[in-house]
Amino acid sequence: MGPGDRASGSICEVAYHLGRAIAEQGWTVLTGGRAVGVMQAASQGAKVAGGLVIGILPEGDRAQASPDLDVVIVTGMGQARNVINILSSDVVVACGMGAGTASEVSLALKAQKPVVLLQYDATSEAFFQSLAVAPLVAASTVGEAIGWINGYFQEQNLAL
Amino acid sequence: MGPGDRASGSICEVAYHLGRAIAEQGWTVLTGGRAVGVMQAASQGAKVAGGLVIGILPEGDRAQASPDLDVVIVTGMGQARNVINILSSDVVVACGMGAGTASEVSLALKAQKPVVLLQYDATSEAFFQSLAVAPLVAASTVGEAIGWINGYFQEQNLAL
Amino acid sequence: MGPGDRASGSICEVAYHLGRAIAEQGWTVLTGGRAVGVMQAASQGAKVAGGLVIGILPEGDRAQASPDLDVVIVTGMGQARNVINILSSDVVVACGMGAGTASEVSLALKAQKPVVLLQYDATSEAFFQSLAVAPLVAASTVGEAIGWINGYFQEQNLAL
Amino acid sequence: MGPGDRASGSICEVAYHLGRAIAEQGWTVLTGGRAVGVMQAASQGAKVAGGLVIGILPEGDRAQASPDLDVVIVTGMGQARNVINILSSDVVVACGMGAGTASEVSLALKAQKPVVLLQYDATSEAFFQSLAVAPLVAASTVGEAIGWINGYFQEQNLAL
Repeated sequence: MGPGDRASGSICEVAYHLGRAIAEQGWTVLTGGRAVGVMQAASQGAKVAGGLVIGILPEGDRAQASPDLDVVIVTGMGQARNVINILSSDVVVACGMGAGTASEVSLALKAQKPVVLLQYDATSEAFFQSLAVAPLVAASTVGEAIGWINGYFQEQNLAL
Repeated sequence: MGPGDRASGSICEVAYHLGRAIAEQGWTVLTGGRAVGVMQAASQGAKVAGGLVIGILPEGDRAQASPDLDVVIVTGMGQARNVINILSSDVVVACGMGAGTASEVSLALKAQKPVVLLQYDATSEAFFQSLAVAPLVAASTVGEAIGWINGYFQEQNLAL
Repeated sequence: MGPGDRASGSICEVAYHLGRAIAEQGWTVLTGGRAVGVMQAASQGAKVAGGLVIGILPEGDRAQASPDLDVVIVTGMGQARNVINILSSDVVVACGMGAGTASEVSLALKAQKPVVLLQYDATSEAFFQSLAVAPLVAASTVGEAIGWINGYFQEQNLAL
Repeated sequence: MGPGDRASGSICEVAYHLGRAIAEQGWTVLTGGRAVGVMQAASQGAKVAGGLVIGILPEGDRAQASPDLDVVIVTGMGQARNVINILSSDVVVACGMGAGTASEVSLALKAQKPVVLLQYDATSEAFFQSLAVAPLVAASTVGEAIGWINGYFQEQNLAL
């Protein structure tokens, strides 16, 4: 998850590497589906690595869909689709921050989903840590994010 | 699309063959995702044929998901997910009829999506034909349904 | 519930009298909220009679809202708001028929809500009776509809 | 908007006074509708002052509804109803903070709705100010919140 129209070039570059790294792990990438910003970069990175890429569109048709999606889910529900993004994910990685992304991180914590903050600022991290209702970690690099997720999955398996 | 808990054995058998035939065409199968009735049978048939199977769940978690899904979309939105089923599909095939399925056929016609009725009764066919706002065809067999869809796709390409 | 842009003048006239009669009973009128067709006529009729009128809009703002609403609920969810119309109602009256209205009647039956068909045709009545999963009645006049609803409410109280 | 089950007594007290003050201005109170925490306290305060109180429930029935609602909207959409809370409001007041409330403030900023933070902490204020995409103010008291909203409405009228 991450900003769309307002995403900077450097955040998109991280998102591209994140999508690629997730696909290389054999995991599925799920984004908000639009052909802009972090959604587009992560989808493209995952596609390059041969991963399965799912997009959950806010619009009622596919006109804004990323060309790199394998599965296009058309909701016609605007930002209400953010809830679907979260509930359909095992782990939520937020790359960059904005109002839409903040709603997704908040909904993830509400739904007790683990969250990784990437390309975060101290203010965002402090705020989401203060909500403290689900596992939340701030990662400095894509590699650190992937490492944390792997550890989380292993813990879950052990716990089960 | 088709009944869940109330689906008869014979309707599920047709749904299985439908799922299989769709996958054999190289098309993606999208269902309501639950492990019962037409949703389960169509997912299983598609899976056997090596197809990509997407399920859009009404629940907020995966407890009721069919084991044959490749992509599980968790909405937590109850019957509002029927709209997503429709908007995400190129063609809607209704196999059998019930209140939920009727809502999906109605929403498909509202959204101008083509609809194929399979395992239909005369009353259902007469009703949906009377709404007459999008292409609607009643097919007697899975083969006839697939044939009609192929024809529809060819027409669309020609028209474009 | 009833057609919007496609509603005929005579159906709108019935909807106006229906909205008025519902308000005169002291009941709340809930519609799809738009300023067209049955939604507008029923809202106007209810307003004239001093009733409380709620509209559940599919759009993400109020630009299409009926001027006769007391409460405007903005969903931005398109036809997914049809589910909210149904779940928020005690009794669903369908005045006229179209694809959107058919989805609402279907969703009402799915949710076990009682349905009154007004300005119905024989094909619609036969179809919805065939689904047969919740109380459904076809009324010839507004008075008959109101009478049936009153009887239904009395029965429910007795049953409770 | 504000926490439900996790709301402290002092936050609920402020919410009660806020609901009361909003109703005394002749404005409508809209909450998440449940009979707990800030939602319940604000609804009760508004009801005592004779205001119109609307609740947008996440559940699919009214079992959890506040007894102080005049209008009960049943969505069955879980946290996706947060979007409706925001889109249906002219101004969003967040009283206290939690994951659900954070999603609502974020969605409000995304939708360009003005937000008043009440019973806020410095971390929350700093975070939402950093998103900076719509008018946002932190108020120390209910009176200050009401004053800011009145000023905002006057500005809007002048601008129009």
